[in-house]
Amino acid sequence: MTMSELSEFSKNAAKKVDAVLDSLLPKEQDEPARLHSAMRWSTFAGGKRFRPTLAFLVAQLCAAPDERIERTAAAIEMVHTFSLIHDDLPAMDDDELRRGKPTCHIKFDEATAILAGDALLALAFKAIADDEGLECDIRIKLIAELAEATGTPRGMVAGQQLDILSENKKIDAVELEHIHLHKTGALIKFAARSAALAAGVSEPDLLAITEFATKLGLLFQITDDLLDATQSTDVLGKTAGKDEESQKSTYVSLYGIEQARMLAGETMDAAIASLSHFGDCAELLRQLARSTLARTA
Amino acid sequence: MTMSELSEFSKNAAKKVDAVLDSLLPKEQDEPARLHSAMRWSTFAGGKRFRPTLAFLVAQLCAAPDERIERTAAAIEMVHTFSLIHDDLPAMDDDELRRGKPTCHIKFDEATAILAGDALLALAFKAIADDEGLECDIRIKLIAELAEATGTPRGMVAGQQLDILSENKKIDAVELEHIHLHKTGALIKFAARSAALAAGVSEPDLLAITEFATKLGLLFQITDDLLDATQSTDVLGKTAGKDEESQKSTYVSLYGIEQARMLAGETMDAAIASLSHFGDCAELLRQLARSTLARTA
Repeated sequence: MTMSELSEFSKNAAKKVDAVLDSLLPKEQDEPARLHSAMRWSTFAGGKRFRPTLAFLVAQLCAAPDERIERTAAAIEMVHTFSLIHDDLPAMDDDELRRGKPTCHIKFDEATAILAGDALLALAFKAIADDEGLECDIRIKLIAELAEATGTPRGMVAGQQLDILSENKKIDAVELEHIHLHKTGALIKFAARSAALAAGVSEPDLLAITEFATKLGLLFQITDDLLDATQSTDVLGKTAGKDEESQKSTYVSLYGIEQARMLAGETMDAAIASLSHFGDCAELLRQLARSTLARTA
Repeated sequence: MTMSELSEFSKNAAKKVDAVLDSLLPKEQDEPARLHSAMRWSTFAGGKRFRPTLAFLVAQLCAAPDERIERTAAAIEMVHTFSLIHDDLPAMDDDELRRGKPTCHIKFDEATAILAGDALLALAFKAIADDEGLECDIRIKLIAELAEATGTPRGMVAGQQLDILSENKKIDAVELEHIHLHKTGALIKFAARSAALAAGVSEPDLLAITEFATKLGLLFQITDDLLDATQSTDVLGKTAGKDEESQKSTYVSLYGIEQARMLAGETMDAAIASLSHFGDCAELLRQLARSTLARTA
């Protein structure tokens, strides 16, 4: 197993999910064209499709065919895009640059950006509800979990609210982890669980996959904080140093760069450890954890 | 059948949906408390529960017990509240007053208002997904239709975008109707259809109910425009004359007050006509159409 095998897999996963997204998103020539352009602008702005890749990797591990997970993977990416659009708004993180391109409200306008996010969120649930390849009860389970991972008190929106409230405030390690388990963690966890649920795995397998994804989500956030503190705007494709500027509590502000790097390494080890009972079959998932850590190297 | 029978029914419907909303919305003492307070502030700001009342009326007509529609009615009210919160934002209609109280972003702040809307939208889908009294395939159908009625190109978000784009522009009657069939109409239509779907009515009954609700939605919007043009801020509980101030195309700006009143009357007649094959059983629904028109008398 080499890194290039994972990178090949990711490229394929991105291609598959992009095709589904393209088929599900409303056309730019249909009215309201401005809204549809905005939805597509942000959805196809060059995201790495980390969550869909994770979902496809878990599907492969659990021997579920792609058809059982590809619409849900697209739904997850819609929810992720919705959250980026709203988080970038002036009233929130006020970001003008994302993946090297103007954010939705800069490229279009604030009202359109708010509505584009709203429409993507609604469409995500429709994508799963309309997924005729999945049994009804599985679709219901996926929709309920996606809604929980998105909203409050256990989802992304709760995490974003806590993150905003923590600005200019000293918070401790427990609070920081709590924020990120929700803000970034909930949707990453759902990406992994959704594939396991679609595959119909045993309860112990589902627990192991949930544990892995929870650690992976934390790792993702720690490395995100490290990237923000150490990389240039050019490399990041988004404004660097925003966290320090907005006095945000991050793994870097709390632990310093070196300690945060150590914590990232430990979190990766914990993620990988939770895959032990899958043996060799989980090698690409381990590789995903390693490559997430390697982002900051 | 008297108007007071409808008003009794509405009061009961509001009480029932409020109890379900209270049980489904996150508690104010749970974190993030500010987010949960904002969600509850806007949900319990004194709305008339028009859509839930319509859903309960159709359920009664179709002999479906309350338990089969009350969670969906609550979900519809969550989606309605989400749309009000986002529409009131400074980047959209910039309203400071709603039902005589400060709007969500005034009472709290913009970021919290955006997130409260987002969280309500996600929770609406969870409410239906978790409705164990309904068969799986009906829940799926309701979720798919609610998502369509919310998003774009056939839902509320599309209507709001078209409405914003029409400001300071002359639009014709066809465009105006198109905007409102989406902005107000889609969710009102879904409120009626959801009860019919939960009851498992025949296709002709579903069509008649859909036709009625479509006309009722238009009537609702025409009377809304009339109220905005003719009533004081005090009576409305929201800033009066906003439409003219923002140069919005409305039924009043397009037709004038007298003609708009006539159109409202005709629309009510058409709504009532579509109920003919239900006979006397639909009397309260007819009364709802009459009372919607009577708002402007």
